[in-house]
Amino acid sequence: MEGAQIAKSVLEMVQEARSASRIIAAMPTMQKNSILGDIAEALLRQQAFILAENSKDMEAGKKKGLSTAMLDRLQITEKGIGDMVQGLREVAALEDPVGEISEMRRRPSGITVGRMRVPLGVILMIYESRPNVTIDSAALCLKAGNAVILRGGSEAIYSNLALAKVLQEVLIRHSVTPTVVQVLPFTDREAVDILLQQEESIDLVIPRGGEGLIRAVTEKSRIPVLKHYKGVCHCFVDADADQDMAVSIILNAKVQRPGVCNALEGLLVHREIAEKFLPKVSQALKKENVRLLGCRSSCLICEEMIQPAAETDWGTEFLDLAMVVKVVHGLDEAMDYIARYGSRHTETILTRSYAHGQRFLQEVDASAVMVNASTRFNDGGQFGLGAEIGISTTKLHAYGPMGLKELTTQKFIVYGSGEIRT
Amino acid sequence: MEGAQIAKSVLEMVQEARSASRIIAAMPTMQKNSILGDIAEALLRQQAFILAENSKDMEAGKKKGLSTAMLDRLQITEKGIGDMVQGLREVAALEDPVGEISEMRRRPSGITVGRMRVPLGVILMIYESRPNVTIDSAALCLKAGNAVILRGGSEAIYSNLALAKVLQEVLIRHSVTPTVVQVLPFTDREAVDILLQQEESIDLVIPRGGEGLIRAVTEKSRIPVLKHYKGVCHCFVDADADQDMAVSIILNAKVQRPGVCNALEGLLVHREIAEKFLPKVSQALKKENVRLLGCRSSCLICEEMIQPAAETDWGTEFLDLAMVVKVVHGLDEAMDYIARYGSRHTETILTRSYAHGQRFLQEVDASAVMVNASTRFNDGGQFGLGAEIGISTTKLHAYGPMGLKELTTQKFIVYGSGEIRT
Repeated sequence: MEGAQIAKSVLEMVQEARSASRIIAAMPTMQKNSILGDIAEALLRQQAFILAENSKDMEAGKKKGLSTAMLDRLQITEKGIGDMVQGLREVAALEDPVGEISEMRRRPSGITVGRMRVPLGVILMIYESRPNVTIDSAALCLKAGNAVILRGGSEAIYSNLALAKVLQEVLIRHSVTPTVVQVLPFTDREAVDILLQQEESIDLVIPRGGEGLIRAVTEKSRIPVLKHYKGVCHCFVDADADQDMAVSIILNAKVQRPGVCNALEGLLVHREIAEKFLPKVSQALKKENVRLLGCRSSCLICEEMIQPAAETDWGTEFLDLAMVVKVVHGLDEAMDYIARYGSRHTETILTRSYAHGQRFLQEVDASAVMVNASTRFNDGGQFGLGAEIGISTTKLHAYGPMGLKELTTQKFIVYGSGEIRT
Repeated sequence: MEGAQIAKSVLEMVQEARSASRIIAAMPTMQKNSILGDIAEALLRQQAFILAENSKDMEAGKKKGLSTAMLDRLQITEKGIGDMVQGLREVAALEDPVGEISEMRRRPSGITVGRMRVPLGVILMIYESRPNVTIDSAALCLKAGNAVILRGGSEAIYSNLALAKVLQEVLIRHSVTPTVVQVLPFTDREAVDILLQQEESIDLVIPRGGEGLIRAVTEKSRIPVLKHYKGVCHCFVDADADQDMAVSIILNAKVQRPGVCNALEGLLVHREIAEKFLPKVSQALKKENVRLLGCRSSCLICEEMIQPAAETDWGTEFLDLAMVVKVVHGLDEAMDYIARYGSRHTETILTRSYAHGQRFLQEVDASAVMVNASTRFNDGGQFGLGAEIGISTTKLHAYGPMGLKELTTQKFIVYGSGEIRT
């Protein structure tokens, strides 16, 4: 398609989304839930169609020489559809955040003022390979009363359009405009660039994927972006920590799923216990094939198990069985280190000290700050949000896992009886 | 100064602000209040110095040929200093939002999870002439635990630097780094451009001023921007509205202070009462010299008092004694009109109908939606926020007047006792 035609078509999509946002914003909860349930059923019924369209993407991906890992993410299996169906039913069961009224108070002027929770409006999701994000994100946006424009990876275009078709047919059967959920049908970068300029019509951009994608979106967007670039999470083991608990938490945080953003990437150990604790934890980690890169002190203590870290290793998101280790003088040095090298994602302290636990909770700036728990808990499901659309380290209305509530905002409402301002 | 030197100096300021943000974030409320009180006293004590520096700006402004209105905004009077002092004392008296813990709940895994209210971090304020914004904004940012970088108009540079000097001397007397509050000492545009790229160190940008300034900031910023471009506020008079109340509210909303963003810019009247109501309200408005620009129907009804509106008049922010008038078929047309021409600022319905009032409150997308009250009430003071740093029509954590709470966010905190994820 020609550039001018793409631009026209993208702008039309945005206008459609804007109009649709008024309809979905006012929709009763029961109808939204009924639509979500029907989408789940339609996915099951149209499984053959979805798998066939997905296989077109798989073939093209193989021809393009995508890695096995990428093809793996791209593939929709029957189990994958089952997971989407399960997700839709879970979202339908969640409480609707829209319409909640709070803080209503009579003011001296006579008016009664409070806040009403309302949808954000139009949300733009930009993501990479996994086609399940199309359904998961659409479900959360729809339940929170938003219209959504979805832009998945170009390698997943047939899959995403197929999922959107199934979903939109359900909307039409409910006499709702299908433009509540739209998948961008173009794979041109230009189309995204145009979308990112529509700050008057799109309220929020949520990019999900690698750091490169997210930086490119942030750079070009005039619309606020909720994102996290990476998860460089730390654990500080205080002088009086329960050392067995510490080994268990560190192992869990590093090894259980090393490729995710809430996995541990850095270990800080109080110098008073370093000689005793470091060999213990290093041995446990070595058994799990974790590569340890340390400061001078830690290398001296565990000569064989910890290799010297290069300057660039500090603050690295390994997403792998590797981790940096540093001996620190105490809580203040640990918090300074985290302020410098952390990514505001998840930080934990292991301590028996009331004062140190409280200071860490109050002073460390991260979306989740913990005492005596594994960083792996930073997750919408674990935190009780029900489902999450991503994790934000942007410090706005959503800092941490983003559930339904984070896809809404609050407006002020006023009940008057003829009051004027004097 | 050379470009490279400016860049270096700006980046240093940003780093200083980042470090300072950790100190002010952890500061006890009593110390923050004590600093605010001392700044108030210092302003009074150093009044002569401030007025002298302000007169340098005034002289330069006169030479540059600034309009009387602009010079008026630029001038600091003794009364102006008194207002700043009063503002500081009011902010000191407000409750500190930082540290509030909510929604703590035990999760199935055994961890206890909740949210803690924390400062945003580093805030960048960009504003135009009025030097009082320097003190008012600094006070709110400081009380909410944020470091702030202030960039006022180049025409107010001596005034702003003088105010910053007085303020920073107080910080130093309290053994607090003065970099908690910094005024950008450069008037070059380049310096602002560099600041707007520092998304890893600055958390939020709040521009205040004309639409041109705000659009320029939004276009260049990689940092989220909270703003409102303009206030195109409407009043819909329903068929069964109390007509005397309607005249009184419309007069108040249009005439009391026509130059502000919550003043009325458009009147929508139900056709069933147009013939009776329009002459009444037009007469009242004409007495106050309000120019009325109307649709065909309204012109036919009030031939002499309403002139035909041009296409470009609809949705215009007049900020003056002028307003558009339109006869509509009912609530739906009124809400469609508002969705198209409104600016999401303030909208009000005048009605006796329970159902219409509720629908309007729920369906109209604006930072404040009202029933039977004047749009002029959309204001931090009137809403009970205590003080405001601006009004946001960006739909993020702040939608409407922004007080102390809107300069904070919430992080998750976790109390564990050795839990790991399975």
